[in-house]
Amino acid sequence: MERFFQAQSVAVVGVSNSPTNMGRFMAANLLEFRYEGSIYLVGPKGGAFLGHKIYPSVLDIPEPVDLATILIPAAAVPEVLRQCGEKGIRRVILQSAGFRELGEDRRKIEQEVLDLLNVYQMRLIGPNCIGIINRHNGLAVPFMPLQAEGPPGRIAVISQSGGVGAMLIDTLAGEGLGLGKFASIGNKLNVNEADLLDYLLEDNQTALIFCYLEGIAQGRRLMEVAAGSGKPIILHKSNRGGAGAIIARSHSASLSSDHQVVSAALRQCGIVQVFEQREAAECLKAFSLPGMQGNRLAVISRSGGHAVIAADAADEFGFTLPPYPAQTIDRVREQSRAKVIQLHNPMDLGDLFDLQLYRELAEMTLAREDIDGLLFIHNYQGIFDGEPSRKLIADLAQIGSRSEKPLAICVFTPEAQLIQNRRAVHFPIFTDPREAVRALARNRDRGKFRTLPFATRRPEDLKPELVRAELGQITPAPTQLSPLQLARILTAYGIPLVPWAPVQSEDEAVATAQRFGFPVAAKTGDPLILHKSDIGGVFLNLPDAAAVRQAYRKLAAVGGPAVLVEKMAEPGLEWFIGGRQDNQFGAVVITGLGGIYVEIFRETAIRIAPIDDEEAGHLLDECRGAGLLSGVRGQPEWDRDVLTKVLVRISWLLHDFPQIRELDLNPVRLFPAGEGCCVLDWRATAESAL
Amino acid sequence: MERFFQAQSVAVVGVSNSPTNMGRFMAANLLEFRYEGSIYLVGPKGGAFLGHKIYPSVLDIPEPVDLATILIPAAAVPEVLRQCGEKGIRRVILQSAGFRELGEDRRKIEQEVLDLLNVYQMRLIGPNCIGIINRHNGLAVPFMPLQAEGPPGRIAVISQSGGVGAMLIDTLAGEGLGLGKFASIGNKLNVNEADLLDYLLEDNQTALIFCYLEGIAQGRRLMEVAAGSGKPIILHKSNRGGAGAIIARSHSASLSSDHQVVSAALRQCGIVQVFEQREAAECLKAFSLPGMQGNRLAVISRSGGHAVIAADAADEFGFTLPPYPAQTIDRVREQSRAKVIQLHNPMDLGDLFDLQLYRELAEMTLAREDIDGLLFIHNYQGIFDGEPSRKLIADLAQIGSRSEKPLAICVFTPEAQLIQNRRAVHFPIFTDPREAVRALARNRDRGKFRTLPFATRRPEDLKPELVRAELGQITPAPTQLSPLQLARILTAYGIPLVPWAPVQSEDEAVATAQRFGFPVAAKTGDPLILHKSDIGGVFLNLPDAAAVRQAYRKLAAVGGPAVLVEKMAEPGLEWFIGGRQDNQFGAVVITGLGGIYVEIFRETAIRIAPIDDEEAGHLLDECRGAGLLSGVRGQPEWDRDVLTKVLVRISWLLHDFPQIRELDLNPVRLFPAGEGCCVLDWRATAESAL
Repeated sequence: MERFFQAQSVAVVGVSNSPTNMGRFMAANLLEFRYEGSIYLVGPKGGAFLGHKIYPSVLDIPEPVDLATILIPAAAVPEVLRQCGEKGIRRVILQSAGFRELGEDRRKIEQEVLDLLNVYQMRLIGPNCIGIINRHNGLAVPFMPLQAEGPPGRIAVISQSGGVGAMLIDTLAGEGLGLGKFASIGNKLNVNEADLLDYLLEDNQTALIFCYLEGIAQGRRLMEVAAGSGKPIILHKSNRGGAGAIIARSHSASLSSDHQVVSAALRQCGIVQVFEQREAAECLKAFSLPGMQGNRLAVISRSGGHAVIAADAADEFGFTLPPYPAQTIDRVREQSRAKVIQLHNPMDLGDLFDLQLYRELAEMTLAREDIDGLLFIHNYQGIFDGEPSRKLIADLAQIGSRSEKPLAICVFTPEAQLIQNRRAVHFPIFTDPREAVRALARNRDRGKFRTLPFATRRPEDLKPELVRAELGQITPAPTQLSPLQLARILTAYGIPLVPWAPVQSEDEAVATAQRFGFPVAAKTGDPLILHKSDIGGVFLNLPDAAAVRQAYRKLAAVGGPAVLVEKMAEPGLEWFIGGRQDNQFGAVVITGLGGIYVEIFRETAIRIAPIDDEEAGHLLDECRGAGLLSGVRGQPEWDRDVLTKVLVRISWLLHDFPQIRELDLNPVRLFPAGEGCCVLDWRATAESAL
Repeated sequence: MERFFQAQSVAVVGVSNSPTNMGRFMAANLLEFRYEGSIYLVGPKGGAFLGHKIYPSVLDIPEPVDLATILIPAAAVPEVLRQCGEKGIRRVILQSAGFRELGEDRRKIEQEVLDLLNVYQMRLIGPNCIGIINRHNGLAVPFMPLQAEGPPGRIAVISQSGGVGAMLIDTLAGEGLGLGKFASIGNKLNVNEADLLDYLLEDNQTALIFCYLEGIAQGRRLMEVAAGSGKPIILHKSNRGGAGAIIARSHSASLSSDHQVVSAALRQCGIVQVFEQREAAECLKAFSLPGMQGNRLAVISRSGGHAVIAADAADEFGFTLPPYPAQTIDRVREQSRAKVIQLHNPMDLGDLFDLQLYRELAEMTLAREDIDGLLFIHNYQGIFDGEPSRKLIADLAQIGSRSEKPLAICVFTPEAQLIQNRRAVHFPIFTDPREAVRALARNRDRGKFRTLPFATRRPEDLKPELVRAELGQITPAPTQLSPLQLARILTAYGIPLVPWAPVQSEDEAVATAQRFGFPVAAKTGDPLILHKSDIGGVFLNLPDAAAVRQAYRKLAAVGGPAVLVEKMAEPGLEWFIGGRQDNQFGAVVITGLGGIYVEIFRETAIRIAPIDDEEAGHLLDECRGAGLLSGVRGQPEWDRDVLTKVLVRISWLLHDFPQIRELDLNPVRLFPAGEGCCVLDWRATAESAL
């Protein structure tokens, strides 16, 4: 990727003298951003623009070229790309639209492009993108006119949409935050977000990355790349596709929509997810500050009301507010005019007009050992104390830049003043105490994640060869596994099942029940019946042979002769464990409080498989039912350890066998601590290996 | 209140020639805002300012005066107020700080002020406030320099904090939204938010009200005033006081913190609650648009990425996206240049550069019968198509102003452009598709509330006289009611209890159990033991006399000789019903899924009492456990009707008897539909009437 951003020469293909020609804007941007390399313009009609000759073809350029940008009708792209290849150009940005986004018939041209990339060993960004920017060397090839605002910064932006990306550049400029590198990646035919992240996470001009994506190309690679880095990554994944979701056949599918899986995956690898642009801006500001190492927050505010709002937010986001030491309070009190100020934390400076003292307070407070971060709220109207206020904000920004602790500056002032300040300081300025406190909380909470997103060591006693044998016979189309088949698979991975057996007659049912010991349960064995209890397909607590016979007859009438007899398990806590294969991230595991609560509360938690004991523990902690596990109000403590182990094993099973498309264990009956668990009901859909 | 805002003459008390004197800013503001009445300046040192003589006292003013503003040291306030009274001034704004906010010793001056208000029949806003503004007549008396931006509008602002209020004025100006009236109310010694709301809801220059409050003075009056009005009210209630909350003795108290009660009360009377300034701005923009009457949203976007984000948001906030008719699509297709645009809804205009067609599309779409509202997203960089874009936005604002359906305009452009547009159009402009869609959802969802917040007709068979008799003997200090006493109270209000009796000996326990029929339960009768099962204070399912004797002996050892014997109720669904007295809103009722789930999930819903059947139904629907009531997966449908009736009766009980401070019915055992319910455990704290 470095060869894209550090290109020493660029050919802009698609320039003409037509006034609506967009290639001309690329040339203009390269000049506006003061590109340090050589610029060559290319267009079949020739001519000149901004003093640069327009070559008819890249083959006519007399010097070697590092990078070409192409903005011409899609049909003409393959030929130009071939010429680039011949010219020895190995990096191309294809901005033209009109590929697969317009329909499947355009795939043919895409295939030609892919073949050429292969032939010439070229890398390509796009198509259907607006190009890249490197503020550090002035390489700026978007095809809309841009302005190079402020000095280059350490923020990188990757955007699938050109429009969203361009507007984010404006937002950064408006917030006074410095852009360093930018890439619009469009259809991601060759280079995708993981390629770029891989590069930007190593790039020492980049400290912080924002991505806007409408689809994720290589989910697991993205997770691995992101987890390995210490740099904050903020991601807005749109195109959640809620309205068009397919009706799900299993709990696992209905409890893990694409966007729930995306959210789980991003949390699992430490990427911060956002849902709108101002949330993105808030995060970029949050992570531009040094890391907050604890919960102890000091607040200084010129307005009492904003101090109250800050205190609410501190409480909401889990900060403590240590009191100010006597020394600080005395210092303020001696300067106070009408003595009508409040000197606890948040400190309300009220009628204190000595802005020099404000600076002093900020420095004193940041130096305190019992404070992890400072929120400084200032307000002014501009007419009255504009000059000293702007000076104060500039000084605070300087104090903040030097500090190892975060200083969040929050300013209330008319918009024109705000813009003036932002342009002057190039330091984050917040405009609401709650926004600032939430940003500090995001800052504090980042980094609470693993550097490896997935488990690496599998439990030793898994028997994949037995599973492989079972799955060897399944059909290409997805089918429901028979209870017996799935039971063998689960047993091979060490999942404890309730004692059970399939029976084919009344007599066999009674004999089996006698073998298990009464009471027993009887269920229909029809794998296609999803919610057995809804159609009278489950009989529990059958106390004797007569009851078993009666149940068998009813079940045979409902679901056919295949009936399951199970031992009634001891009472316990019912849990749900499931999983499925996700198109973007592979195997996922899902868990939550079981039984009917799965459906009513739908409070499950998700992880991308495989996971280890530690991650399974976090997964359980995320479930709202987790509080029940430790035993409340006279209930015993339940066997959380065994639940953890089952989760780990299920995660490996789904990871090892993508043929298992969806799996529900519901309920898993959990016994008191040390007494294990057993699965009472199991269902899975499988299809032959893809 | 009208005499404050429509004052024909104002005396500004506290003006001097000192350069730091703040009274001078009031005079300057009255001139800046072109006050239509007479201005008199008052200050003991005399002199003149801005051409106005400074009178030594209000008594020296030769003409009558409608309104006085006072900004002088607190100690001098009573004498000046007396002079105002003698002068015949009946409306006063007291801006001075230094009253109760600095400590209890300042209450003495407050009492003097209150006495003077009484003697002279004066109304007073403040103290500790910045004053009021009426843009329609130029009355503007805050003591910081302000600018009168844009034309007067129909938004009124009430703010307890001067700083927050002033900054909200800036926000309105920045958003191009028109302020009409403003009041900073400070300590609310005399005039409070309900007084002002009462006036503003009747005021025909006001269409929309925002309040910032740190405390609510008259909660029930506020609810009644708000519910009666069709005007949107947006409220930010800060000072949630989470950190300092007292440890609660009952479930009801722990499940209904002050801020949860505030949220419930506001929902109940149709006030929209917000938690930060930009959320307030979003709501003000949302409610500046005409009401959205349905879910059918059309989206037109110049950028494909923003169209995708808008589609996600439409899904998230429950909108449908009807397709565009062929006529519209044809109209667009014939103008499209590179034919690379998407013509479903959201419509991505892509490379369509004819902004005149944009206007036409907006009008065509708003006119459609199958569309309830339109989101129009435009983006431009300013350099390229600034002029036509600004024209487009002005035209869209005009189309939106004429339309009876909401047109949400969302613009992406550099900040300077945005400000220019906002100043030009005075129409809401959103800056993120999700913000705009959420605003439309807020707009659509408003008005789904009752005009009377409380029930007015009590169930006919309540017997308050029996309750009064029981409560006649309680002590002033809060005490736990005995089970017997509380049982009589509940029975008087028609609440069904499980058959139960207090017993004092083993023999009596056995005799009682035999009378009820086995199995029975036995519990400690010690009212001070809160969680009986934690300390072995509950025995369930006692099958025979021997078991009852053994249980009695154990319970007597734990909690003393008072033991309760109860019939074991049939199995059913356990529910929680409780309530307490709230300092701001009076009686509240709380409900949710019962048993151990109360503590684990803490998913309860709250209403201010009394409520009727309909409101009790809404209350149940708010509970996450509500799905269980209708019966899932083989469970019966439970008796929701009886639950509703118990909620109504409990709400009247707590409303009628504020002496009952906290009440827990947990669990209420619910039987299948038509079979009723019974309360298995009941507890309450009471104190004698205040």
